Amino acid sequence: MIRVGVLGARGRVGVEVCKAVEAADDLELVAAVDRDDPVEGLAGAEVVVDFTHPDVVMDNMRWCIEHGVHPVVGTTGFDAGRLAAVRGWLDANPGVNALIAPNFGIAAVLMMHFAQQAARYFDSVEIVELHHPNKADAPSGTARRTAELVAEARRKAGMAPMPDATSTELDGARGADVDGVHVHAVRLAGLIAHQEVILGGDGEILTIRHDTMNRSSFTPGVLLGVRRVREIPGLTVGLEHLLDL
Amino acid sequence: MIRVGVLGARGRVGVEVCKAVEAADDLELVAAVDRDDPVEGLAGAEVVVDFTHPDVVMDNMRWCIEHGVHPVVGTTGFDAGRLAAVRGWLDANPGVNALIAPNFGIAAVLMMHFAQQAARYFDSVEIVELHHPNKADAPSGTARRTAELVAEARRKAGMAPMPDATSTELDGARGADVDGVHVHAVRLAGLIAHQEVILGGDGEILTIRHDTMNRSSFTPGVLLGVRRVREIPGLTVGLEHLLDL
Amino acid sequence: MIRVGVLGARGRVGVEVCKAVEAADDLELVAAVDRDDPVEGLAGAEVVVDFTHPDVVMDNMRWCIEHGVHPVVGTTGFDAGRLAAVRGWLDANPGVNALIAPNFGIAAVLMMHFAQQAARYFDSVEIVELHHPNKADAPSGTARRTAELVAEARRKAGMAPMPDATSTELDGARGADVDGVHVHAVRLAGLIAHQEVILGGDGEILTIRHDTMNRSSFTPGVLLGVRRVREIPGLTVGLEHLLDL
Amino acid sequence: MIRVGVLGARGRVGVEVCKAVEAADDLELVAAVDRDDPVEGLAGAEVVVDFTHPDVVMDNMRWCIEHGVHPVVGTTGFDAGRLAAVRGWLDANPGVNALIAPNFGIAAVLMMHFAQQAARYFDSVEIVELHHPNKADAPSGTARRTAELVAEARRKAGMAPMPDATSTELDGARGADVDGVHVHAVRLAGLIAHQEVILGGDGEILTIRHDTMNRSSFTPGVLLGVRRVREIPGLTVGLEHLLDL
Repeated sequence: MIRVGVLGARGRVGVEVCKAVEAADDLELVAAVDRDDPVEGLAGAEVVVDFTHPDVVMDNMRWCIEHGVHPVVGTTGFDAGRLAAVRGWLDANPGVNALIAPNFGIAAVLMMHFAQQAARYFDSVEIVELHHPNKADAPSGTARRTAELVAEARRKAGMAPMPDATSTELDGARGADVDGVHVHAVRLAGLIAHQEVILGGDGEILTIRHDTMNRSSFTPGVLLGVRRVREIPGLTVGLEHLLDL
Repeated sequence: MIRVGVLGARGRVGVEVCKAVEAADDLELVAAVDRDDPVEGLAGAEVVVDFTHPDVVMDNMRWCIEHGVHPVVGTTGFDAGRLAAVRGWLDANPGVNALIAPNFGIAAVLMMHFAQQAARYFDSVEIVELHHPNKADAPSGTARRTAELVAEARRKAGMAPMPDATSTELDGARGADVDGVHVHAVRLAGLIAHQEVILGGDGEILTIRHDTMNRSSFTPGVLLGVRRVREIPGLTVGLEHLLDL
Repeated sequence: MIRVGVLGARGRVGVEVCKAVEAADDLELVAAVDRDDPVEGLAGAEVVVDFTHPDVVMDNMRWCIEHGVHPVVGTTGFDAGRLAAVRGWLDANPGVNALIAPNFGIAAVLMMHFAQQAARYFDSVEIVELHHPNKADAPSGTARRTAELVAEARRKAGMAPMPDATSTELDGARGADVDGVHVHAVRLAGLIAHQEVILGGDGEILTIRHDTMNRSSFTPGVLLGVRRVREIPGLTVGLEHLLDL
Repeated sequence: MIRVGVLGARGRVGVEVCKAVEAADDLELVAAVDRDDPVEGLAGAEVVVDFTHPDVVMDNMRWCIEHGVHPVVGTTGFDAGRLAAVRGWLDANPGVNALIAPNFGIAAVLMMHFAQQAARYFDSVEIVELHHPNKADAPSGTARRTAELVAEARRKAGMAPMPDATSTELDGARGADVDGVHVHAVRLAGLIAHQEVILGGDGEILTIRHDTMNRSSFTPGVLLGVRRVREIPGLTVGLEHLLDL
C-alpha cells in the first residue's frame, strides 16, 4: 500500500483523484487537503498529488520535497526557472523524486509520442482536433504541442516541406499553421475532447486518434504516476517518460 | 438492352464510362465518339453520356434532343440560361428527357442529401474534407455545396446560430466560414477524395463520411442515370432525384 | 407552453426527461409521477411522457388516452396485439394521438433511416457496433434492427447477395449474420454506445456513424415527440415519422 | 548512388519496386531479373530486392550473400530453420547483411508497433480489419499478428483479462478470439486494406488506424530497407527494427 495525499482535494480534478485513490487496492488515501487546510495534514503520505494553482504549487512542492514526500504534479505554469528551482530542492533532498506532467491522459500522451515517431516516415501530416463548443482557445494546447513535436521530428530527419498545391483558398480553409503543420479545430455540441493526427505517404495513411469520453480520463495516468514516482530518480517532466516507450 | 453512346469517349472519364457500359449486361455500347469524330456516329443510341467540355456540351445536347436521344451529362458549366435553353429543346421534343448532374458519385450525393436532412436536428454541423495534395482549391466544390445545403436547411428550420465560445484563435484554426458553416480542408499525400460531415447535439454525434477510393467511383452513378433517364420526364438536375429518397 | 407530465419520473430516464422539460422555454412540467404516486396527478397535462415498465405501460396509456392526454412512450414491450389495443382506444377518443418509439436518440434513428435508404445503391453493407463492456447482448438491438432494415431494402430492390470470397475463416471473424448482413460487436472499456454502418461499391465508401456521448442523448428526441405529438393524428410508431425525412 | 538489383522483376510487386528504384535520385537500377533470367545478371548490384517465391528465395539469398550482395526480402515462407540457414551464410560472409520483412508497409508496421506499446496501458483492446471482398482469409495475417503482439504485451505486463459481460451472443457477433484478443473482419466492395486497433480505458479511447490506398503502398518501406540494409549488421527480421522506434 502506497500512502497518498491529495492537494486541491476539493477541486474538480482533486475530487476524482481522491475517488480513484480510494478505489485502488494498492493505494491508501491518507490526506485530502484543500486551500484552507494546514499542509501539515500531508505528513504521513509517501506520495502527494497536486492539482492546485500556479500561485501555490511551488510552496507545495518545496514542502513535500523537504519532508521526504514525492510530488506528482498536474498544476500548470512551469517554466525553466521553476523547473530549475525544483531540481535544486531535489538535489538537496536525495531519495526524493518528482513528476510534473502537463497532460495525464495516457491516450493523449501516447498519441503525441506516436505522432512524433511516425512523422519521420510520411510526406504529409495534419492535425484535426475536435472539442465541445465552450472551449475558448483554438487550436487546443494539445494540438499545438503535437504540431510542434511533429515539426521538430521532421526537421531533425531533414524532411522536405509537405506537398500542397493549394492556389485558391477560402480564408481559413487550410487551418492554422503551427510550425509548418496544418491544424484544424472543430467545435461541436456533444463532443468532449478528441484529436486525430493523420499521416500520409505513397498509397498509405496512418491515423492516430484520441477520444476523451469523460472527465475522469486523466485518473489512470495520475495513478500510474503515483505508483512509479518513487523509482524514477530526480525530476521527471512528462508522463511519456514513465511509459517504457 | 439499352443502346448507349458516349461523347468524350477518349477522355479520362469517358474511357471509364465506355468500359463500364461494355461490362454491363443490360447495356450495349453502340458509339464511342470524341472531339474529331462526326456526331452522327451517335445515331442509333437511345441514351448518350456526355463528359466533354462546356464549349461543346450545348451543341451536343441540342443534337441529341433533336434526334430523340436522352442525354446524361456530367460536363460542367450549366447556369440558369443554359438550363432554360435545354428545357426549351425538351419542350419542343416531347418524349425526350435529360439528366445533368454535377456529381455522379452516389456516395457523395447521398452524403450531401443526408447532411441536409439531418442538419435540422443538431445544434452544430461542421465539415472536414480531405484530398490529395495536388488539389488547387480549398475547400472542395463538394464541401462548399454541402455547407450551403446545410446552411439553407438550418435557415428554413429557423435554427439558432451554432454555439462557439472561441475567443482566442490562431489564424485559420476554425476553418473557412461558408454561409455560417465551418469547413476544414486537409491536404495529404496518399489520400484521394474524402469528406466528413459531423453533426452534434446534446450527448450525441452523427457522422456521415464519404471516401472515394479510385477514379472509377462515378461509374455506378452514370449507369444509374443511363438506366433511368428514359422514365424521368423532362429535365432532371442532380443525381439525387433518381435515388427515390 | 405545452403542459407536460412525466410517468416514471424517478427512474434513470425519467429524471433526465424532467430536467429537460424544465429547461425548455416552451414546455412546463406539471406532473412528475412515479410508481407509488396516484395517476390522477397527471390531470392537467396535455402530453405525458412514459418511461416505465411493460407491466404498467398499457394501463398508463389507456388512462391518458381516455383523459384526453397525448402519450409519448419509450417503454418497451409493444407487440401487434398491444398496438391494436392502443389503436382501439385512440379510435374511441378522437383528437387524442400517441407516439411509441423504441429509440428516442435522433442520431441513431437517422442512422437507421439513412442506412436503409443508401443500402439499395451499394454492393456491400456491414455494421460495426461498439459498446461499453457491461452490455449483456451482442449485437445490440439497434444493430440487429439496422441489419433487418438494410436486408429488407436490398430484398425489395432485388439486389444480388453481397460479394464475399472468404474461404478460410477463424471462427467468428466475419461477425454475426443477421438476415444476410454481417454485424460485428466490439466491447471496450471507455466506450458508451456507438454504431457504424459501412456501405461500399465500385471505388467508393459511405459510412454513417452514430456516437452516444452521455446518458441524456435521448432527451432531444423526447422533446421533439412532446412538441409534435399533438399534430400527428392517431398512433405513430417510431421517431423517424416525425422527422420530415 | 546505391546500385540495386530486383529479383522477381516482372511480378506484380517487382514491377512497382523497379519503378520506385528508377524514380529515386539516390538509387540506380542495375539489374531486373525474373524467373527465366540468369541470376548472374545481379553481379554489380550492392543490394538486391527479392519478391519471388518460397521455392526459390533460399537459393537467391545464398547466391547474394556469397557474392557480397545485401538481400532485402519480402518473399514469405521463412521459418526458424530457414532463418538459421541464412544466419549461417551471413556468418560465413562477414560484412554482408540481410533484411527479411513479412510486411513492408510502413504504416502497417508502425500500427503494429504502436498497438503493442499502448496495449499495456488500456483495459481493453480489439481489432477491426477491413478488406476488399476478394480476400480468402479472415482475419488477415496482419490482424492476427497484431493480436498476438497485443496479447504478448498484455501477458508480459501481467494484465487482467479484458472486461466483457456478454451473456447473450448471436453466433460470431464478438468476432474471432486470437490469443484472447477479439478480431473482427469486414469484407466490403470498394475497400482495399485497412485496419483499426481500438484501445479503451477509463474514459478514454486510443485508435490506431492504417489505410492502404493503392498497391504501391509497400514501396517506401522497400526503399527504406534498400537504403539501410548496408548498416545493420547480420540478419534483421522485420522492418520495425529499421525505424529507430
